[in-house]
Amino acid sequence: MAKQKVPAAPSVRRLPSYLHLVKKAEADKLEYISGTVIAEELELEPIQVRKDLTITGIVGKPKKGYPVKLLITAIEKFLGWNKEKKAFVIGAGSLGTALSGYQGFKEHGLDICAAFDSDKRKIGKEIHELPVFGMDELETKVKEYKPEIAILTVPSKYAQEAANAIVKAGIKAIWNFTNIKITVPDKVIVQKEDLSSGYAMLGVMMNTKK
Amino acid sequence: MAKQKVPAAPSVRRLPSYLHLVKKAEADKLEYISGTVIAEELELEPIQVRKDLTITGIVGKPKKGYPVKLLITAIEKFLGWNKEKKAFVIGAGSLGTALSGYQGFKEHGLDICAAFDSDKRKIGKEIHELPVFGMDELETKVKEYKPEIAILTVPSKYAQEAANAIVKAGIKAIWNFTNIKITVPDKVIVQKEDLSSGYAMLGVMMNTKK
Repeated sequence: MAKQKVPAAPSVRRLPSYLHLVKKAEADKLEYISGTVIAEELELEPIQVRKDLTITGIVGKPKKGYPVKLLITAIEKFLGWNKEKKAFVIGAGSLGTALSGYQGFKEHGLDICAAFDSDKRKIGKEIHELPVFGMDELETKVKEYKPEIAILTVPSKYAQEAANAIVKAGIKAIWNFTNIKITVPDKVIVQKEDLSSGYAMLGVMMNTKK
Repeated sequence: MAKQKVPAAPSVRRLPSYLHLVKKAEADKLEYISGTVIAEELELEPIQVRKDLTITGIVGKPKKGYPVKLLITAIEKFLGWNKEKKAFVIGAGSLGTALSGYQGFKEHGLDICAAFDSDKRKIGKEIHELPVFGMDELETKVKEYKPEIAILTVPSKYAQEAANAIVKAGIKAIWNFTNIKITVPDKVIVQKEDLSSGYAMLGVMMNTKK
């Protein structure tokens, strides 16, 4: 896969926390929020906050800070969260079920509309009110629902096989929660989620604290 | 909570991927692995790889690369993954169940030994062969199992209440999968996991690709 030209990942990864804070400021009817307040709340350096927010194109005003409404719009636009995106969950196991029910996603415009599995005992049932279809129905259902994203949560040994089916069905972005680095054509975007990363952070903090 | 003095988070977060690759090299009976090979495989710049691995204290040899066995030991020691850590899952819903069954954790020395819930229908049952106890049994079970980590997966509205119970029971590290920023005493470590971060990355890549 070709290297994706994307702004620095750590900055992008922090944007949802900024958004959360700025939305809270909006709910509190604040017109501006200062970078220093954001930095304190998120335990970051103020210069880092300023640098991160630069990628959204919004610049803070001296002494006032960032205009709340504009900043919300800018972050959401930058993340593509201003437009609803339909997604399928591939693999209706416990992780697929957990993600289907994850409250945060819907707020950010992620509309998970169906789940897929090859286990006959799951097909025809529902998880969090989503229908579970068979993997052999994927192509038909892609034509029907037109999802942009496949959230891949199958057991690792089926990851590549499922990825092939996703690509063949015409979905162009895969959010990969398996342990496997899947191989896909260049035109397909893959975001790999590694739950071990968080555990690495926790381990280092525990080491440091001793 | 005081700021944690921890090496750069993005570097730490990448270490599990390095470890995975280096272990593959060990399985292939390689003595050395070059930074360039690692960089190519993980789609990073070689200079970034060199910088990241410096925090483990291991330096590569010119033309040869990193000594595989030493690097594995160093990464695992740095992450605290060389020692088994016991953990409780707090909240036996679908996310708690998914994490209890996540294969990667056990490999890294994370031994999840029990789950807790306040739902009477779940108590006394099992998830992935783990016993599910009532929240009121937490203190007793902490004395019995001596877990170092609580993996918090309760619904967000119960997050702070559950965190209080965890702290009171004497667990010193919380891996927080809820949407809520929990408040805990200084001595308690919190690693917050935000699944929206990955979705932010995916959104930006989809925006960039268009």
